[in-house]
Parts: sequence; C-alpha cells; structure tokens
Amino acid sequence: MSISDQTDIIFNAEKYLKNVAVDNVIFGYHEKELKVLLQRPAGLNKWTVTGGYIKKDESIEEAANRVAALRTGLQNLFLQQFRSFGSPQRVKDKEFTAKKVSKRTGIELPADLWIFDYFVSIGFYTLTEFSLVSISKGPFDEEIEWWRINELPALTFDHEEIIEEALRALRIHIYLYPIGYELLPEKFTLPEIHNLYETILGKPLDNRNFLRKLMATGIIKKLNEMKSIGAHRSPFLYKFDKKKYDAALKNGMFLAF
Amino acid sequence: MSISDQTDIIFNAEKYLKNVAVDNVIFGYHEKELKVLLQRPAGLNKWTVTGGYIKKDESIEEAANRVAALRTGLQNLFLQQFRSFGSPQRVKDKEFTAKKVSKRTGIELPADLWIFDYFVSIGFYTLTEFSLVSISKGPFDEEIEWWRINELPALTFDHEEIIEEALRALRIHIYLYPIGYELLPEKFTLPEIHNLYETILGKPLDNRNFLRKLMATGIIKKLNEMKSIGAHRSPFLYKFDKKKYDAALKNGMFLAF
Repeated sequence: MSISDQTDIIFNAEKYLKNVAVDNVIFGYHEKELKVLLQRPAGLNKWTVTGGYIKKDESIEEAANRVAALRTGLQNLFLQQFRSFGSPQRVKDKEFTAKKVSKRTGIELPADLWIFDYFVSIGFYTLTEFSLVSISKGPFDEEIEWWRINELPALTFDHEEIIEEALRALRIHIYLYPIGYELLPEKFTLPEIHNLYETILGKPLDNRNFLRKLMATGIIKKLNEMKSIGAHRSPFLYKFDKKKYDAALKNGMFLAF
Repeated sequence: MSISDQTDIIFNAEKYLKNVAVDNVIFGYHEKELKVLLQRPAGLNKWTVTGGYIKKDESIEEAANRVAALRTGLQNLFLQQFRSFGSPQRVKDKEFTAKKVSKRTGIELPADLWIFDYFVSIGFYTLTEFSLVSISKGPFDEEIEWWRINELPALTFDHEEIIEEALRALRIHIYLYPIGYELLPEKFTLPEIHNLYETILGKPLDNRNFLRKLMATGIIKKLNEMKSIGAHRSPFLYKFDKKKYDAALKNGMFLAF
C-alpha cells in the first residue's frame, strides 16, 4: 500500500466492503524454525497479523492474495481459509483509537470512519519458506518482522487467538495433506523431513514410527544417491513422488503418528 | 422471523452488518438417512440453505445460533464454522432480483437495498437428530423441507458448493472427533453406530476394520446387556464412555478406516 492507498480507504470508501476484511497468518519455515509474519502499527507497542480490506470487485481469496503479495512480494502463496472471527468487541483496543491513529500517521481520521466499525475477519493462513520472502510493511505500520512461534510479542485485538487457531488448523492440515514440496530442497534427507514435521507440530516424533508411517503414504521415494555431510555420515537422499503427492493433496491422506 | 423482522431488515438497516451474513447448513441424521434442511424462496423454483443477517450487537456465532433456532426450534445446536464464501458474483441469480422478490412477497423492495449487495457468507454446519427438529420457514420463503443428501433439488446462488463444502468438512470432522452422542439412543448396537458412520461418509466401511479402530479409540464400551430384535438375534448393547468421548472432543483423535 502506498499513501494513495491510505487515502483511497478514507476517501473512496465505496470501493470496499463494509464490516468484513481478511487477515493473513503467514507462517514461515526455515531449518527447524517456524515463524509468523507480524506488523506493528505506528505508535503502538502491540503487533498484528497482516491483513486488509476487500474491494467490491474481488473475491475474498483475491483480496487475501493481493494483501499477502503486498507484504511478501510473493504472488502465488497457497492461502488456506481456516476460520472467521466476528464479535462486537473484537477490534476494540483502547490504545488503538482514531485519535491515536491520526497522531501516529499524521492523517486526520474521523472517529466514525468505516474502518473503525465492527469487522468480521476472514482468516487465511499459509506456510512458506521464509528465506524466499521479501517483506514490506503496510502504510499504517512502523515495522514488519518474522517472530518465532514460541516467542510472540504482545498482540492487539484478538490476534493471539487468530494465530492460535491458524496454528491449530495447520497442525491438523499436515496430518491430512502432504507438506514439504515448497519447504525442503528438491532432494532431502530423512532427518530434514523429520525436522520439518517436528517443528510444525511443536513436539518430538518417534523417529521409527514417523518414518514407517511417512513411507506408507508413498509420497516420498528413496534415491540411489547419498548426501555427504561429514567424514562418516552420508545419509540417503529422498525426493517427493510428485504424482502421489498431488493425489494426496487432492484426496487427503491420514498420517497419524 | 415475523413480518416485523422483514420490515426491520428494510427500515432498520443500521442495526445490521453490511456485506456479511451467515449461512447454516443443517444436516439431519435419522436411521441410515442423512438429510439437509433447505428452504424455497417465495416464487422461485430453486432452494437455499438457511441463513440470515448479523446484528451489530451479536457475534457471528450468536447470529448463526439465533437464525438456526428460528428455523429449527432448537436453541443449542452445535454449529461449527467450516468456510466463508465471498465473490462479487456469488449472490447473483437472474431469477432472484429485487423486482421478483417484491412481486413474490408483496413488499416493494428497492433494487439498491443493502441486502442485494455483495455478501460474504460465513458458513456454519451442524448435525442433529432430525426427528427432534420442529422446522419453520423464513419470512421470504414458501417452503422449508429436509432433503436427502443424494437427492438435492436445484439450488440458487453458490449454495450447491456451500453444501458440498459443509459435507466435506463434516466427513473430515468425524475422523478427528467423535460423533453419535446426540444421534444414537443412549444404548445402541454395533450395527447402529456402523450405519451412522457409513451414512455420513456415504460409503460402505469394512465391518471388522471399522469396529477394531472404533474400539481402539476407547469412546464406546460394551454393556453386559443385549437388545432383543428377533427370535435368534440379540446383539450386545454399547454406550459411550462420556469421559473419553469428551476428551476426544477436546483433544481430537485419529480414526482412519
């Protein structure tokens, strides 16, 4: 968003849907770390997930993709709806009033501006390789940063609940659908995929049991090739069986460890 | 809804959220049949799921419960969010214009009335014992009926997709959380619970495998009591272990047949 987008929201309100917006919980994975992308509104000591308003000529998915692309530079994030949030209290935060916003941004916003109304938020999440993302903050924000999922800062509104619910959905999702194709190198070792699952689930998984169940799904196959990672260690490399992976993405699978 | 609720929507628009509403997919189970509650708007030959607008003083869950109670007479249906639907095209139906509505209902509705705008629908579903439900139609509807899930009539807007998505969510849900407490008699036979799962999943389940996995969850227990259903048939009765059932409702379980 540019300054003109800001004034667009203020002066061209009729372009946007009232009372409903999108919030994107953008998770990033990179070498055993799971993070979430947060922004800090100007002048506030609390953070929010990324999000934005819905234009009348776009679907909710298009809106989510547009605002996600603005924040990450990536056009084709696979955004997944997980839940919507709506109650008269949800966007009340006494530190976040129109007056403060105008003080922080230098733009005078009327306190009855439509953006301060009751908003239902359609929650989307995505999981990406965070080293690929080039982040840029929104027009009302002072900072945008990746935060480790276990060390989150103070969050405003109901955004702590939104992140919790997105994480819960992601954790159920990886039991039902394959992940990893965009998160691991093309050829990877078993410890690498094991780390990925442990990091997202946030708990240790018995190695033998994990591998037995993973192999049973058929989504990965062993290559006749080893990775050289030290004098006495050269584990076999694996890759995804893209046909079976795609079939599992479509039809679901059950991977209970 | 009464006539006064109709006029409330028209003349007291400021009480309601704009551009966002709730749709409830109400599934009913009864003896091997899975049905869905649909209504037919006056004068139209297509059906819709039940739904309604959100008041500014209620949460989306409260709105969903209020409109579900209006249609079913039941106050505490366990409504589960599954997805939201929103695109500029979704509520366009050339047979469903303001003019036709006014002709059908006898009430003159301006074509630019807020209820004809782009609406995001928050989808909820619930599963209930349909013999317990006392249905009553909405103010703009001519009929309300239970329809067998495999024999649906023509639906308007994107309501066919909404039902499909709700059914998909329900079918995933029963692999992750227990069902049956409100749907089966307090004491039931194994064929009765087997029928319940087969009916909802819409496919036959191998009996031995089903029972082995179900027993492994610990949610049902065998009673020292038999049901007398014929000269030579007296199957054992079972009941839910409510403690384990509730724990599985809270923590999830994995029941893959």
